[in-house]
Amino acid sequence: MFQTFDSPTRPADGPPRLSRLRAEMARRGLDGFLVPRADAHQGEYVAPRDDRLAWLTGFTGSAGFAVALADRAGVFIDGRYRVQVKAQVDGATFTPVPWPETGLADWLREALPDGGTVGFDPMLHTFEQIDTLVQGLKGSGITLSETDNLIDRIWDDQPGPPMGAITAHPDALAGASSADKRAAVANQLRQAGQRAAVLSLPDSIAWLLNIRGSDIAHNPVPHAFAILHDDARLTLFTEPAKCDGDLVAHLGPQVTLRPPAAFGPGLRSLTGPVRVDRASAPFWVAGQLAEAGVDMAWGQDPCILPKARKTSAEIAGTQEAHLRDGAAMVEFLAWLAITAPGGRLTEIDVVTELELARRATNALREISFDTIAGSGPNGAIVHYRVTRQTNREIAKGELLLIDSGGQYVDGTTDITRTVAVGDIGDEEKRCFTRVLQGMIAVSRLRWPKGLAGRDLDALARYPLWLAGQDYDHGTGHGVGVYLSVHEGPQRLSRLSEVPLEPGMILSNEPGYYREGAFGIRIENLIVVEPAPVLQGGDDRAMLRFATLTWVPIDRHLILPDMLSAGERDWLNAYHAQVAEKIGPRVSVPARQWLKDATAPI
Amino acid sequence: MFQTFDSPTRPADGPPRLSRLRAEMARRGLDGFLVPRADAHQGEYVAPRDDRLAWLTGFTGSAGFAVALADRAGVFIDGRYRVQVKAQVDGATFTPVPWPETGLADWLREALPDGGTVGFDPMLHTFEQIDTLVQGLKGSGITLSETDNLIDRIWDDQPGPPMGAITAHPDALAGASSADKRAAVANQLRQAGQRAAVLSLPDSIAWLLNIRGSDIAHNPVPHAFAILHDDARLTLFTEPAKCDGDLVAHLGPQVTLRPPAAFGPGLRSLTGPVRVDRASAPFWVAGQLAEAGVDMAWGQDPCILPKARKTSAEIAGTQEAHLRDGAAMVEFLAWLAITAPGGRLTEIDVVTELELARRATNALREISFDTIAGSGPNGAIVHYRVTRQTNREIAKGELLLIDSGGQYVDGTTDITRTVAVGDIGDEEKRCFTRVLQGMIAVSRLRWPKGLAGRDLDALARYPLWLAGQDYDHGTGHGVGVYLSVHEGPQRLSRLSEVPLEPGMILSNEPGYYREGAFGIRIENLIVVEPAPVLQGGDDRAMLRFATLTWVPIDRHLILPDMLSAGERDWLNAYHAQVAEKIGPRVSVPARQWLKDATAPI
Repeated sequence: MFQTFDSPTRPADGPPRLSRLRAEMARRGLDGFLVPRADAHQGEYVAPRDDRLAWLTGFTGSAGFAVALADRAGVFIDGRYRVQVKAQVDGATFTPVPWPETGLADWLREALPDGGTVGFDPMLHTFEQIDTLVQGLKGSGITLSETDNLIDRIWDDQPGPPMGAITAHPDALAGASSADKRAAVANQLRQAGQRAAVLSLPDSIAWLLNIRGSDIAHNPVPHAFAILHDDARLTLFTEPAKCDGDLVAHLGPQVTLRPPAAFGPGLRSLTGPVRVDRASAPFWVAGQLAEAGVDMAWGQDPCILPKARKTSAEIAGTQEAHLRDGAAMVEFLAWLAITAPGGRLTEIDVVTELELARRATNALREISFDTIAGSGPNGAIVHYRVTRQTNREIAKGELLLIDSGGQYVDGTTDITRTVAVGDIGDEEKRCFTRVLQGMIAVSRLRWPKGLAGRDLDALARYPLWLAGQDYDHGTGHGVGVYLSVHEGPQRLSRLSEVPLEPGMILSNEPGYYREGAFGIRIENLIVVEPAPVLQGGDDRAMLRFATLTWVPIDRHLILPDMLSAGERDWLNAYHAQVAEKIGPRVSVPARQWLKDATAPI
Repeated sequence: MFQTFDSPTRPADGPPRLSRLRAEMARRGLDGFLVPRADAHQGEYVAPRDDRLAWLTGFTGSAGFAVALADRAGVFIDGRYRVQVKAQVDGATFTPVPWPETGLADWLREALPDGGTVGFDPMLHTFEQIDTLVQGLKGSGITLSETDNLIDRIWDDQPGPPMGAITAHPDALAGASSADKRAAVANQLRQAGQRAAVLSLPDSIAWLLNIRGSDIAHNPVPHAFAILHDDARLTLFTEPAKCDGDLVAHLGPQVTLRPPAAFGPGLRSLTGPVRVDRASAPFWVAGQLAEAGVDMAWGQDPCILPKARKTSAEIAGTQEAHLRDGAAMVEFLAWLAITAPGGRLTEIDVVTELELARRATNALREISFDTIAGSGPNGAIVHYRVTRQTNREIAKGELLLIDSGGQYVDGTTDITRTVAVGDIGDEEKRCFTRVLQGMIAVSRLRWPKGLAGRDLDALARYPLWLAGQDYDHGTGHGVGVYLSVHEGPQRLSRLSEVPLEPGMILSNEPGYYREGAFGIRIENLIVVEPAPVLQGGDDRAMLRFATLTWVPIDRHLILPDMLSAGERDWLNAYHAQVAEKIGPRVSVPARQWLKDATAPI
């Protein structure tokens, strides 16, 4: 099993560890120390050795940070984690702080009215984060001080750095060779008058070199840094032990492999201007360049946009991965339909069976993330991960929300289905149908080229809004191809102003959550493509979404009278395609279930 | 009649006037001179003496500018005016330049490769405009030079400045006294640490002082400048002859009346920091303050937001104005329904009859703008204004688009209806029904507090998008109360990121235009209000629109099968309310027509 059901931390561990940290702070003359969740690569997942926030506080969420002072310690968490943090940290020792409502600078000003010195590890914070904090602390008498990582000093059994093997990702699946990608990105740098770019995001490096790694859970990326030169040469900084001869041959003569310790000297030897992404590169990078007098140019990581525009080979691979994953999902849903109404099935049983179904494809490399299987009230916890402590039997009359995905060599999947266990009340069905209407509105969408997620997000919410309802997350996130299941810059969200472009893969996942009662989410992946001109349509360039996910949507939860003719047509056409595409790939009993599950309404 | 049907300019007048301007430029040693459409108040309408762009070039659009050089003259116009400009200017002398696609700085760089001096009148350009131009000309050898207005030098029969009387606007209609408004805005200034604010927008001044003017067509505002001090005292700079004793009494002792010539000395005598709006104040204002060493603070005109949040008295007044205007519209539409199918009716006949219907209310102060009455292909010209040259008979089988409004002391109206003359083809009906669906989507909308026009605009376009269609204008603009029919900052547009707030009045006017064939637009005014919590709805603050406009939407153009149940319910409920509210206010024959026009579908 990729997924475990342990509670990885205990609240009681926090207080003695905080005491040791405070002693270390005192020894250094520091009044405070920042402990972020992030590692040097600012990703959503971190290796065990980098899970310093969880080790210190007990809090295991995917975002947040702590600040230790002599007399208090704040754990800054966003709205998703208000409930979880209370269960995971010792409330007498750590104070949860609602963030970003309370800013770090404001909190420090209040906690250190006479000023003081707060230490931070310059590898774990971006330039933008530190710069914002410095601006916010102006006039407060509080200064920031770079230091080595104090947690690493006191964490006796801290795991070593991950040493996952790096392997070549076939050019045929990538749709472009690394040499071609490097040439194109280097050309971008030359046009901007830049001599090199610093890369610190593992998925950017994996994309650019056509490599994959295994250093962290769920994301097939290596821990590495890189410098791309304007002549398309690249220096890759990572543990040599992760790389075998095949990999070196794949990388070719234009790529130089160097150990992590060579990164600093490598930066200091550059000729500027060097592009650095202030939103993702470690603060330490800017320090190294400044120290050596190398001219810096702020600019976005140059891999982000080309990586987001998938090649036709990547789209074809992703389509195949979704058919394979869809068949596994249908086997699972057929099993669930037969087994769940009998009672006694738990959330852990569901997660286990689903992973087994994906493993049965013999192609599963990893799961895309820990499966969310929330029944009844647990469905309303948007980031729910079942543990032995929270596990519960799924009762008849409850909704079960299952959000999961698989990493395959040809693509990354992410799908949510909410299913009825037994008979469900009309209120849940009304809410489900509204969520479905929003999800269909996005699926059917065509729009004039140039619009961003912000311009479109409302379409998914409109049916809920009319009923006075809404959901507190974006409608969709970008998705990689055998890379991160959350990638930018594209999003269907009121926070995203990046125009959508052909080849971008997104999720389409409106939801509705009633705390203490139930949760609903329906999610397909979709890919942007040019829309053909329609009979009677304008002569203007428009885009549309093609659907990637082919799995039935639970017809028991739909109130057909609420649907317009267009919505009903979309649903029936979608289900007809599911039957056609997935039917031949599943077992006989699953095929029988699929036939009913995809009947027209 | 407020509206005329003349063509106000002739292309042949342009060349000799341009020659005189060039002679004047040569006399001053200038290589170029900028001629904007705007006056010192940057409004949409200008007084005849300020219509310098039209006088010089012949172009009468509401936005654009010209640049005269020794060897060429560019007329910069946006997409709305590409066709119009060709008919109005002498093409051998003036070159239309598509703008903003071609920027002024880039055009000047190409036209003056060896550099040169370009003059401008600092009263007619904002600081932002000149600053952007200066940035764009860096390194070009082209410099800008302030000068008096060269057009005023050569325009022998230039009209004098407008001298329209200024009158008090009743506090009862405004819902707040000027003293209270000035106290609130002054408080804003004190909180920002500013000692005064410069006001140059006539509708801001009219709102703040509860006054109305008559200096320009269609907008009941005075030409004036003002300085508001942080103790709520105000100095009003305008022609004393416009103000009688009643007005002086209304203004009260806290308001000092000074002639326009005193504005410069007034600015120079201030103590800073003084708030100046770089997007609307004349460049000249910043020069006066800088010359006197007065500290400036850039900031938005402090009246803009409070003016946009209408008081309950203003909303009540606007509602009454819309009932009155709706009755006039119904009389007109009933007349049109009887008269138009007979043939021989022209666009001018329609405009004339509509103005007569509004005048018959005995309450019409002005029309809100020149009525757009476009039949057949003229309907596709978004800003069409009929002249004797373009006037045409309205044939059976054509659509007629009528966009118009009235200025009443209690409110400003703006309404568009598109009506069928005789039998109309199904293609037009399909397009009309899609436009209607978008207009209904906005009318029914509820949304979580905090969203801006950009977040909502797509909802009005979705039905058209599905058919590969769209329209090239915003979905709605802000509207004043017996003030400008176009006011900011609120808009339903992908360009507007200002959150909508209760009390803001907007238009809701999706459309569809097929060049050379027909045009469709349906427009109601709506006002933002808090939405009550619904049964089963979330406990979150939501807003909605209340409808202000009550006039039938032509049922002959609707294909009922395309509507969802919710859309149909909205339409029937709307028409039932139109019948109930307007029926008692119209003549017997109009009431009979109204009954049929509002029957359920």
